[in-house]
Amino acid sequence: MSWTIDETHDPARTSWVPGADDHPEFPIQNLPLGIFSDGQAPRGGIAIGDRILDLAALAESGLLVGEAQQAAVAASGPTLNPLLALGARPRRALRRAVSALLSEPAREDAVSRWLYPAAACTLHLPAAVGDYTDFYVGIHHATNVGKVFRPDNPLLPNYKYVPIGYHGRASSVRVSGTPLVRPCGQLKAADAAAPVRAPTRRLDFELEMGVWIGTGNGLGETIPIGSAAEHVAGLSLLNDWSARDIQAWEYQPLGPFLAKNFLTTVSPWIVTAEALAPFRTAQPARPADDPVPLPYLLDANDQAEGALAITLDVTLTTPAMRAAGMAPVRLSRSAATHMYWTIAQMVAHHASNGCDLRPGDLLGTGTISAPTHEGFGSLLELTRAGAEPIALPTGEVRSFLEDGDELTLAGRAEAPGYRAIGFGPCTGIVLPAISA
Amino acid sequence: MSWTIDETHDPARTSWVPGADDHPEFPIQNLPLGIFSDGQAPRGGIAIGDRILDLAALAESGLLVGEAQQAAVAASGPTLNPLLALGARPRRALRRAVSALLSEPAREDAVSRWLYPAAACTLHLPAAVGDYTDFYVGIHHATNVGKVFRPDNPLLPNYKYVPIGYHGRASSVRVSGTPLVRPCGQLKAADAAAPVRAPTRRLDFELEMGVWIGTGNGLGETIPIGSAAEHVAGLSLLNDWSARDIQAWEYQPLGPFLAKNFLTTVSPWIVTAEALAPFRTAQPARPADDPVPLPYLLDANDQAEGALAITLDVTLTTPAMRAAGMAPVRLSRSAATHMYWTIAQMVAHHASNGCDLRPGDLLGTGTISAPTHEGFGSLLELTRAGAEPIALPTGEVRSFLEDGDELTLAGRAEAPGYRAIGFGPCTGIVLPAISA
Repeated sequence: MSWTIDETHDPARTSWVPGADDHPEFPIQNLPLGIFSDGQAPRGGIAIGDRILDLAALAESGLLVGEAQQAAVAASGPTLNPLLALGARPRRALRRAVSALLSEPAREDAVSRWLYPAAACTLHLPAAVGDYTDFYVGIHHATNVGKVFRPDNPLLPNYKYVPIGYHGRASSVRVSGTPLVRPCGQLKAADAAAPVRAPTRRLDFELEMGVWIGTGNGLGETIPIGSAAEHVAGLSLLNDWSARDIQAWEYQPLGPFLAKNFLTTVSPWIVTAEALAPFRTAQPARPADDPVPLPYLLDANDQAEGALAITLDVTLTTPAMRAAGMAPVRLSRSAATHMYWTIAQMVAHHASNGCDLRPGDLLGTGTISAPTHEGFGSLLELTRAGAEPIALPTGEVRSFLEDGDELTLAGRAEAPGYRAIGFGPCTGIVLPAISA
Repeated sequence: MSWTIDETHDPARTSWVPGADDHPEFPIQNLPLGIFSDGQAPRGGIAIGDRILDLAALAESGLLVGEAQQAAVAASGPTLNPLLALGARPRRALRRAVSALLSEPAREDAVSRWLYPAAACTLHLPAAVGDYTDFYVGIHHATNVGKVFRPDNPLLPNYKYVPIGYHGRASSVRVSGTPLVRPCGQLKAADAAAPVRAPTRRLDFELEMGVWIGTGNGLGETIPIGSAAEHVAGLSLLNDWSARDIQAWEYQPLGPFLAKNFLTTVSPWIVTAEALAPFRTAQPARPADDPVPLPYLLDANDQAEGALAITLDVTLTTPAMRAAGMAPVRLSRSAATHMYWTIAQMVAHHASNGCDLRPGDLLGTGTISAPTHEGFGSLLELTRAGAEPIALPTGEVRSFLEDGDELTLAGRAEAPGYRAIGFGPCTGIVLPAISA
């Protein structure tokens, strides 16, 4: 139901909000949810063009009724968790009501007072993250990374049966724009007898999407694959910053820890399942030799339209580029269709042992690399672990991120006959390590 | 400061609470913190003998002043996170004030009205767990598990440099007494071509301690080893239930996931750092061939008294044992001194890359096995992965846990010249899988 196409997706629908119809990311067909502040307390908002609609004010306005009003009330606090907990129906009702308010010219007088310029607002994390889980469903990334260790057999035997995932750190998830302090950690050179503690020399990004859980499940209960998509409230972009040298030394036998938990950045807006409905597409067919997913992960409808047509870009600026007034350089262009498992499969697998998911939980997809070099989703892959540095227009080269570098992820959902929508930036600048 | 011995540890101090002086776990020298309910809303309490002192009522009583009153107010809500956030000083002030109230006979009339029989109360999780991190500092456990895979080289090269840890699942941490629904998952026999989905056949416990974080650190900040112990509010017992067959198939390359996150059980009381002060002891000397810890993990005072003299017991009852009225059988006796890294080293390492810890975060130590068989902390070790089943007094045998089995952890801190204290039970019964 939440993924149903309705009148809010009509590409002919326009808004009276100045500039919204020409906005590359937030036309009236998007209406993503976030938390903003402007001097008053943080509260829920919806992006429209370069403005933010105040949901707390809207809840007080008397303009909404029924489930839409219930949703706006739930979005009036400092996190969207109460709204996410309501599930798809009130969220969709709010979308339809806001779409109507922002499209009908007669509503401009009543509503425009609750629109603020986004540039004057601060954006916050949209929800308090209860648990953050990072998956590994980008098969080209998994293959590229595996080749470093096992050239002849890069994918482990479980990969095509298990949507591999692991627990990440919730406390250090932050909203786009949060600076990254270069972390220190134990680094051990291959020929060194012992590790040293030093700032990471192999600071990397990971191009991912973040999945926000709406309604959850109780401990001991599972989420059937057929209804798993209904538990997804929406998506953001996610950069799982990584320190490759810390990772190489620490990760066995229990997985990455300090190599990843110093910061995870998400874009500020939850682009809702409702907004993404037109961009559903078939999950790419598995190669003929690949196993069929086990029944608890297999659903015909999910295979038919459980993937999403979202283009993903990574851009970089260096201090020298900014000093020269140069535009960001694109490091990568990938797409969300390069996921071996669907989002529904991730959700169903996560709960398949009775693990409870909660509203506001965040699932990372893992790095989404395209099959070929121009779409690799990390510097580890793009530079072949530093062996083939990237040449920048300034004459600089990059093996890994250097202090002052600013990295930005962008995403764009497109489908024939529909208005394209975007996610807003997921960005961060690298600050020097504080001390070793 | 929080680990200082003061008048509250005087073994001669007695309480007017009936039976408290003879209580094996909760004499007046303990005073652990928890959350209880008795028909009214959950709120903070302190265990004394077989009673619970209502901290919300105490905060209203006018009997406390200053930091002790501040602490009682912070403990009046449904979680202890606000109290944990205050840090050691108010917590210690509350301890000293409550110790005085419960020891001075003249206070009985004023205070006894806020004491409830523990047997009539429900105990809850003491804090909302922001993040749960599980370490791996039980070196005998790590060696035993490593031997399964690498008989000649069981410990990986990083083990004696890095306090190995990984992120666990916060949502499925529950208080003692929560039943365990046997999880289903992907199981793959060594000789099978593909996995099947089925209830786990290798359900295990893990004998651990849980460390509750008090004050935290900001993102990008570190916690120096010399002050790391001050960030510890107290300890509980922790059972990190594990499905060994799910684990074996899923864990590479990113670590355990669904094998662990279906339930983690903690004992209900936070035995505070203050209460544990007399039981500090020297960290066992490393073997001469072992490396010296890197400077950020090395502190003379921590080495001198950063370990804890706590005996740890594991007991089991089966349905047949209960039907026959038999007492629980002890599976293991270990001790917290079998940790290769101290709690302060775990905390300092966790924050060493700038990862932010928050009040109420929970650190598991990892399985604390003794060096010899009678003190192994999991069935994987006790039965050598099922090859040597345990014989029970009923004539039954156990390789792994069966439906109806009830497993209990217990802990006891002892030191010459001081009153021993306990932790309360950490228990759970295994219920059948709901469906495959």
